[in-house]
Amino acid sequence: MFNIVLLEPRIPGNVGTIGRLCFAMNCTLHLIKPYGFGEITEKEVRRAGLDYWYDLDVREYENIEDFWSKNPFNDRHFLATTKTKQVYFDAEYKVGDYIYFGREDAGLPVSLLEKSPKTCITIPMTNEARSLNIANSVSIVAYEALRQNFKDFK
Amino acid sequence: MFNIVLLEPRIPGNVGTIGRLCFAMNCTLHLIKPYGFGEITEKEVRRAGLDYWYDLDVREYENIEDFWSKNPFNDRHFLATTKTKQVYFDAEYKVGDYIYFGREDAGLPVSLLEKSPKTCITIPMTNEARSLNIANSVSIVAYEALRQNFKDFK
Repeated sequence: MFNIVLLEPRIPGNVGTIGRLCFAMNCTLHLIKPYGFGEITEKEVRRAGLDYWYDLDVREYENIEDFWSKNPFNDRHFLATTKTKQVYFDAEYKVGDYIYFGREDAGLPVSLLEKSPKTCITIPMTNEARSLNIANSVSIVAYEALRQNFKDFK
Repeated sequence: MFNIVLLEPRIPGNVGTIGRLCFAMNCTLHLIKPYGFGEITEKEVRRAGLDYWYDLDVREYENIEDFWSKNPFNDRHFLATTKTKQVYFDAEYKVGDYIYFGREDAGLPVSLLEKSPKTCITIPMTNEARSLNIANSVSIVAYEALRQNFKDFK
C-alpha cells in the first residue's frame, strides 16, 4: 500500500510495533542503519505483539544512500517532522508513496528536510507538547494516507 | 477536545503513551478500573515519554458504573472494536465526543457493544492481521476526530 521508512531507529520495541502496523496495512517497512541497537531480534518484535515478522515485507539498508539507490528520491517521498507548518492531512497521498520518520530522539535531519521542503509534513499538537511516540506518529499519518486511498486497500 | 476512555487497561506503558497523546491533543483521559497493574506510577509514565502527566486531565473511576454516573452514556460515545464493519473514518465526530478502547487482550466486551451498535467503529486491517497496539489505535481514531474538527483545535 505505502512505504514506511524509519531512519536510524533507536528502540527495537518501536520497530516491532511499527512492523505490526505495517503488516495490518499491507505496507512495506524500510529500516535504515545505523540502529540504536545491534539487530532486531525475534524476542523484541514478538514482545511488540508481532507474531508474523517473517510475513512482513521488511527491508534493511546500510545507510540512506543505499536506500536511495534502490528507492530513488522524488516528490512522492514525504518527510514527517515537527519542523514544518504543513499539516499531514492537507497532503494528498497515493498508493506507493514513501513516508519517512526520524530517530526517536532527534527526528529527521535538517539536511534531509531541506532536500524537499514541499513534502515535509507535521502532526498538529498543542503548543505545550513536544512530540508523540514514533509508532503513534506513523499510525496517524499512514492511516490518513490509507483513508484517502481506501478504495485500493485489500 | 475529545474524551478518551480506557476500560481496564492491562499495561501501564500503554497508558503512559496514550497520556502523552492526550496531552498533545488537548484530550481528557478517563481510566476505568480494575487495571492490569496496581497503580500508575510516575516511573512508568515517564518511561513512555510523558514528562507532564500532572498537567494532563486524567480521571480515574472504580468501574464503568462509576464512570457513567459522571459521564452519562449517549450516542456521542463511540466504541472501538474489531467486531463491527463500521469504519472509524465514516463516523462524524464532534468536539466533546467520547471514544472507548478495551483491554489489550480482549477488547471491549460484547455486552457493551450491544448497548450501542450504531456507535461501534473499527480500524480496517488486512485479513491476516488481528489487531493493532492500543496506543496506535487510539492515535488513529483520535486524530481522525481531530482532523474533522481541526477548526476548533487550539
